[in-house]
Amino acid sequence: MIIQPVVNVAEICARKGVEQVVLSPGSRCAPLTIAFARHPKLTVRTISDERAAAFIALGLALKTGKPTVLVCTSGTAALNYAPAVAEAYFQQVPLLILTADRPPEWIDQLDGQTIRQQNVFGQHIKQSHSFPVDFSHPDAVWHSERMVSDALNEAVAFPAGPVHINMPLREPFYPAPGEELNFDAQVKVIEEEPQSFELGQAQAIKLQQEILKYKKVVVLAGHDQRQEALLQNLNTFARSTGAVVVGDLISNTYELPQVVRYQDIIFANPDMEQLTKLQPDLLITFGKSSISKALKLYLRQYKPVAHWHLQPAGQVADTFQTLTKIIRCSPQSFFAGMAGSVKTESDFADTWVQANNVAASFIQNYTSEAAFSELPVVARVLQALPSKSNLHLANSMSVRYANIIGLSAKQQVEVYANRGTSGIDGSTSTTVGCALASTDINTLLSGDLAFFYDRNALWHNYLPQNLRIVLLNNHAGGIFRLIDGPKQQPELAPYFETHQALNAENTAKDFGMRYTSVQSLQELEQALPAFFAADAGAGILEIFTNSAANAEAFEQYRKAVRQLQL
Amino acid sequence: MIIQPVVNVAEICARKGVEQVVLSPGSRCAPLTIAFARHPKLTVRTISDERAAAFIALGLALKTGKPTVLVCTSGTAALNYAPAVAEAYFQQVPLLILTADRPPEWIDQLDGQTIRQQNVFGQHIKQSHSFPVDFSHPDAVWHSERMVSDALNEAVAFPAGPVHINMPLREPFYPAPGEELNFDAQVKVIEEEPQSFELGQAQAIKLQQEILKYKKVVVLAGHDQRQEALLQNLNTFARSTGAVVVGDLISNTYELPQVVRYQDIIFANPDMEQLTKLQPDLLITFGKSSISKALKLYLRQYKPVAHWHLQPAGQVADTFQTLTKIIRCSPQSFFAGMAGSVKTESDFADTWVQANNVAASFIQNYTSEAAFSELPVVARVLQALPSKSNLHLANSMSVRYANIIGLSAKQQVEVYANRGTSGIDGSTSTTVGCALASTDINTLLSGDLAFFYDRNALWHNYLPQNLRIVLLNNHAGGIFRLIDGPKQQPELAPYFETHQALNAENTAKDFGMRYTSVQSLQELEQALPAFFAADAGAGILEIFTNSAANAEAFEQYRKAVRQLQL
Repeated sequence: MIIQPVVNVAEICARKGVEQVVLSPGSRCAPLTIAFARHPKLTVRTISDERAAAFIALGLALKTGKPTVLVCTSGTAALNYAPAVAEAYFQQVPLLILTADRPPEWIDQLDGQTIRQQNVFGQHIKQSHSFPVDFSHPDAVWHSERMVSDALNEAVAFPAGPVHINMPLREPFYPAPGEELNFDAQVKVIEEEPQSFELGQAQAIKLQQEILKYKKVVVLAGHDQRQEALLQNLNTFARSTGAVVVGDLISNTYELPQVVRYQDIIFANPDMEQLTKLQPDLLITFGKSSISKALKLYLRQYKPVAHWHLQPAGQVADTFQTLTKIIRCSPQSFFAGMAGSVKTESDFADTWVQANNVAASFIQNYTSEAAFSELPVVARVLQALPSKSNLHLANSMSVRYANIIGLSAKQQVEVYANRGTSGIDGSTSTTVGCALASTDINTLLSGDLAFFYDRNALWHNYLPQNLRIVLLNNHAGGIFRLIDGPKQQPELAPYFETHQALNAENTAKDFGMRYTSVQSLQELEQALPAFFAADAGAGILEIFTNSAANAEAFEQYRKAVRQLQL
Repeated sequence: MIIQPVVNVAEICARKGVEQVVLSPGSRCAPLTIAFARHPKLTVRTISDERAAAFIALGLALKTGKPTVLVCTSGTAALNYAPAVAEAYFQQVPLLILTADRPPEWIDQLDGQTIRQQNVFGQHIKQSHSFPVDFSHPDAVWHSERMVSDALNEAVAFPAGPVHINMPLREPFYPAPGEELNFDAQVKVIEEEPQSFELGQAQAIKLQQEILKYKKVVVLAGHDQRQEALLQNLNTFARSTGAVVVGDLISNTYELPQVVRYQDIIFANPDMEQLTKLQPDLLITFGKSSISKALKLYLRQYKPVAHWHLQPAGQVADTFQTLTKIIRCSPQSFFAGMAGSVKTESDFADTWVQANNVAASFIQNYTSEAAFSELPVVARVLQALPSKSNLHLANSMSVRYANIIGLSAKQQVEVYANRGTSGIDGSTSTTVGCALASTDINTLLSGDLAFFYDRNALWHNYLPQNLRIVLLNNHAGGIFRLIDGPKQQPELAPYFETHQALNAENTAKDFGMRYTSVQSLQELEQALPAFFAADAGAGILEIFTNSAANAEAFEQYRKAVRQLQL
């Protein structure tokens, strides 16, 4: 039987700009499957493992900037979405999650695939709705239509994020013979004008006065996608005020001239006199998290006098234990309104830039001269990335290595990483999702644990030919040999590193991907051009290293960093 | 730094009978990892994919009957446990879940691997605790010790299930050089005497009076593990009262003489006169869910006058919309106390037994004569199972096929299935967990979607050699061709069935398992003895069938069932 309000969910989604839908097969969700599959304006894909499906949806939403719709059946399907939903919540990526459910009278009655789905995403969801189950009263139809608009409006409102509609559905699920499915031309849609979050004039005048107190201004960009207008305004602000701009690789600010991005090296250096010289009096932050633990620890110890955080709306984190003022406007508007408002001491700025330049030369020389281990391997891979491509960094060491090494501005590579929750559970799927919505090459840099954890990222019928996976396989959670603590424990090998024997050759075969493996820098350098060729097709480049040797090489690198004269 | 109350968690677990611990590697959980790994009485394994880890823990708990401890790090690790936690909740399997967390002051501060972990399992957990973070006051130590006892007592109290302790942990995570870890001999432990749930004498007298009203008594056993004493008392009750006993394969009652177990066939038959003859006046149920949809629909239509459900404690389901009385005692005690209390009309009982016998002969003949398709394939596999082995049935068609076909009493095979939530997400992992705690052969019967969904069940260093996986590979979710509804839709192939191209050969290679594939009944019959040989080692037997051909064969089978004279 066709339930028109269920059909209308697909129509409202299409009207409100949804383009991408990811379904997982099921019986209870059949009315949704049919409605979405038959909608002429929606791209619909089926992914069987809901954990992978949800991360793929996240990747699609990241790349398109529009909410992806997820549809699953009743039962634990929704729970398998949970890791990606939490990532979307903290990374602020819009998703609309539609979970089919048994009607309320059948919950807890020992029928199959029945759990307690209302509010199943707990505190990691922006909104949770229950779709009406009975449409005999016209208000229920109004309710259902309004709900879909509300949910999509909320998904994209700053900070964007996931929203959930739980949809109890009674049998029959399928159109009766001869019954025709039509999308309702009169369906109710509520538009929401996006808020501008501009810095008010009075606000600007007040802040322009206030900022004059400071002589050592540092702007720190957190995790975010590349935003052209923001980069321009930030650049104008920095040039006109002399402020220092600092950004990790995942802030996508590395193209800005003179941006400081070697904080992993600068602040790992124990020269206290130097560290004191770098201490800001005003720290201005925007965006989400930072990767550099060295920078975090530095700022928590060498606190600025004031710390302003720019965030249009939502809960604000005090990452550095330094926060003194929250400013509610878009960073882009702040930097436009505050251009030329202050003068940072040039000695101060020069000290930062000088330290950054020394660190940049150091890491370039170090990685080009170092023997085969993960750090020089990652340097070669980053250098070889096609320009204007997308780089995805898996947690845990991949993103750290890449942040140490960095990219050059002319590469114009956009950087992605699941740093909302920093899990290893969905990096490959997220990359696949981005690749599906992109014509550029999408490269994932991943360790072996993250890669095999999320192997089902590739288990579907939509392998994107622009996907490149660079797999750093040391057959273990190598990070535990690199950080202090576990490496001194007898439990290191069996319970922290957790040796795993797999390589990706059979996986590549299973999914019809090109496969190359290398075991030296020379082999790697030879393999990279063909691997990244535009027409090479989806491929895995597996780089075998030894976890103990990597640890020794990383310890040498850290020693060299500590001896560096900045 | 060693935090003694954290070390004591391991000690209390050991004192309270925990034997099995499943860790997933992480940094935040290091104090727990070290405490559990060093405990001399606990078996500790490391599984990297937390989704698989939790289902493996569930399998261990199912087989040992004792709570398994799960330990993970902060962040989405806990969310990956969620599918297995829900299954454990509804299947009533004891788990103690210890999730390491950041201390409360660092939640929502954009640090890595930080989500909102308190009550993260929502409504699918028996208890959620927050472990103290500061032990400067002695009451906090008392609190922490009491909490672990409380949690373990609750995990095993009827109905058993999962409990959660969220454990915020501050750095440093590791013992300082020279610091020694000791388990506290004086640690507080609260024992709980298990409740007996016996039928009271007055209660028995009252029920013995009341049951005399009925002449057509049917006892229906729901999903449960094999319980020797219950089977004996049920048998005595049935013999002394003439009551009909009905049980699906997952009720593990098929060894009882004259138990009715072909309800999928009996109630798919449209002979209304016959159906009326089978209608009970008193239905007595116990245990959890039933598989047979035909039986469920029958009872909902041909309602008994009264329906008593035996359940010691907890929420009761009204699965058949017939429930009139809840009796709070153990089924075992009820059947002992009510032996000889009533006489069921022998004509009534004979009709049931006769129908069951006809159905039994039918399915035996049908499957032995039918051409190659999934139904006769499953029949061959079930017949070949080693005696006293364990059979695990994946959702969705595997468990249905097996329930249609059945086992013979002399096989003494114990049957397992994740019917708490009926998900396809963890059947392989659950089997692996059972196999790790068992010396018998553990056979999983699985479709391809369920198998590849949970492929990480095999991704660890503990492959049990007593594991046998029988994989019904039709390269799709074949169930959607077998049930009415989707098969009439144009979306059938792309959005319901969801073709998947994998076979398990590379998976077997990856994990060092024996691999055999067959494509006919003859090949299957030849392969089975070697596959099930006690010393054959872990293996995958992959049976390739065609989804469309299976659907056609199943339709023929259904037609034959409808024409059967019961």
